Amino acid sequence: MSVFTPVSSTECSQWLSVYALGQLESLEGISSGVENTNYFLTTSLGRYVLTLFERLTRPELPFYLNLMAHLARHGLPVAAPIADRHNEYFNTLNERPAAIVLRLAGQSIMTPGSQHCARIGAMLAGLHLAGESYGRKLDNPRGQLWRRQAGARVLPFLNAIEHTLLEEELAHEAQLDLAGLPVGPIHADLFRDNVLWQDERISGVIDFYFAGIDTWLFDVAVTVNDWCSLPNGHLDTQSTRALLDAYTQMRPWTDAEHTLWPSMLRIAALRFWLSRLEDKHLPRQGEMVLVHDPQRFCDILLARREAILQNAIPPLSVR
Amino acid sequence: MSVFTPVSSTECSQWLSVYALGQLESLEGISSGVENTNYFLTTSLGRYVLTLFERLTRPELPFYLNLMAHLARHGLPVAAPIADRHNEYFNTLNERPAAIVLRLAGQSIMTPGSQHCARIGAMLAGLHLAGESYGRKLDNPRGQLWRRQAGARVLPFLNAIEHTLLEEELAHEAQLDLAGLPVGPIHADLFRDNVLWQDERISGVIDFYFAGIDTWLFDVAVTVNDWCSLPNGHLDTQSTRALLDAYTQMRPWTDAEHTLWPSMLRIAALRFWLSRLEDKHLPRQGEMVLVHDPQRFCDILLARREAILQNAIPPLSVR
Repeated sequence: MSVFTPVSSTECSQWLSVYALGQLESLEGISSGVENTNYFLTTSLGRYVLTLFERLTRPELPFYLNLMAHLARHGLPVAAPIADRHNEYFNTLNERPAAIVLRLAGQSIMTPGSQHCARIGAMLAGLHLAGESYGRKLDNPRGQLWRRQAGARVLPFLNAIEHTLLEEELAHEAQLDLAGLPVGPIHADLFRDNVLWQDERISGVIDFYFAGIDTWLFDVAVTVNDWCSLPNGHLDTQSTRALLDAYTQMRPWTDAEHTLWPSMLRIAALRFWLSRLEDKHLPRQGEMVLVHDPQRFCDILLARREAILQNAIPPLSVR
Repeated sequence: MSVFTPVSSTECSQWLSVYALGQLESLEGISSGVENTNYFLTTSLGRYVLTLFERLTRPELPFYLNLMAHLARHGLPVAAPIADRHNEYFNTLNERPAAIVLRLAGQSIMTPGSQHCARIGAMLAGLHLAGESYGRKLDNPRGQLWRRQAGARVLPFLNAIEHTLLEEELAHEAQLDLAGLPVGPIHADLFRDNVLWQDERISGVIDFYFAGIDTWLFDVAVTVNDWCSLPNGHLDTQSTRALLDAYTQMRPWTDAEHTLWPSMLRIAALRFWLSRLEDKHLPRQGEMVLVHDPQRFCDILLARREAILQNAIPPLSVR
């Protein structure tokens, strides 16, 4: 379940008076999600999602909520946070920071084709371009420093082969020069379950709560690793090319991005291998976490290393 | 037709590069509307409406576009304007100020029932409450001063009965003290054709280009005169009560509003009688105006006067 902090209709009705959204019509707990308390909220004026934040703190929330508002303002299908009558994007409900966001229509597509990957590539470029004019800063909470620290934390739990793999990957990242890559706000978690579709078009991009400032190329690599990987971990050439062509048509890569692309695919795989290892071996006290199998990203990592050795990372159609 | 300034696909594609909305997929002229050039615009990232402004000028546009953005930000189903990559809500296309707004789903309901009027009342209260925190100012362009001036302009074209009616209504308004009424941004034209519905809920409030700062009560009266008038011009008691009850549940009236309500219904009817008389007798050179019959609002005006004499203006359920 994902209602960690229950909210009664009476509490919600009273709290809604700080918004201009009319009367409460229904409030229904959402059973997915592992981090925040979420309710479907229907008022006389519309359909929304109520979120009570269980991990993020008040000082962190403005970066995320204003980023979502900024992207929505630029025409992207992002669940825009709703401002209250004091123009604030969050306040307090049952002792938690709480926000209302628009409820977007649509469903996730878990077995995407090339045409979906092309739409994802265009959307990701749109997010990056629209984010250029966003002013707030927050480092990617799963960036290079975190990877080094998480690596040290999980190393004791690994077998000999994994141990070597992790040490090699951390050493690989450490010797790269990523300083020349373009940076900006990135989603950092644009997996298939964070995108909603309607009539074969993207109707929603959700869950920005791992966003931060980092290289755009890292975001592309995270996205490609999820959308374009075959069951064996290797990249599907056609869907990878569709995603990257659509992306670079809107936002062409720099020379440094072309050069670092194969390495960035490894770094992006490492990031999720690490977080899944940590969730498995070092679960945080009192936290309900849906533990994903770390092996998936170990496979993806090994597949990228192999492809690089064979010079088989799918190239872009046009450079 | 309403494409006064044609835009080619090539021109639009090139102009779109200032937005983060992806590639142009289709551009289709919209044949309704009498004031601006409108196109349905579909890009790889979403569905929008492109508007080229033919009457409003650059200095006027920020009030309207920022108001629409403000209300959307507060969770109301308003066609939000899309910011370009420089964070601007409008720029220039084919020598016209041009903006992109979200395309909202739904259709107008031209024969509403009480349940629709209740939703309209709640939505109007939501617009007023959300508008309280809006900072920009622009007087209602069809406010008291305009009514006096328009009255003088159309008087020579009226027959004796109309002449007397108009003079009496202008005198009636002149002797009222409206200074104590609450004011804020108002839509000022919330007619049935400016509201879209989907699944019996309001999915869109459109055409804010007559908005301005004026009394909230004037906006309520404009809305009631359109949504709740019977074919003979008299108010339908049930739908009027439904609209006002829903409105005042969210935003209770002051004593002054209760007192001035019957008079405000006359003022709101006068405003549309005048603009329709002017469109008929004094059409502006070179402008395509869909001429609505002024008689409808003359009938409504006479019906309100009669109801006031008979003390038959539908009261609110609760005061």
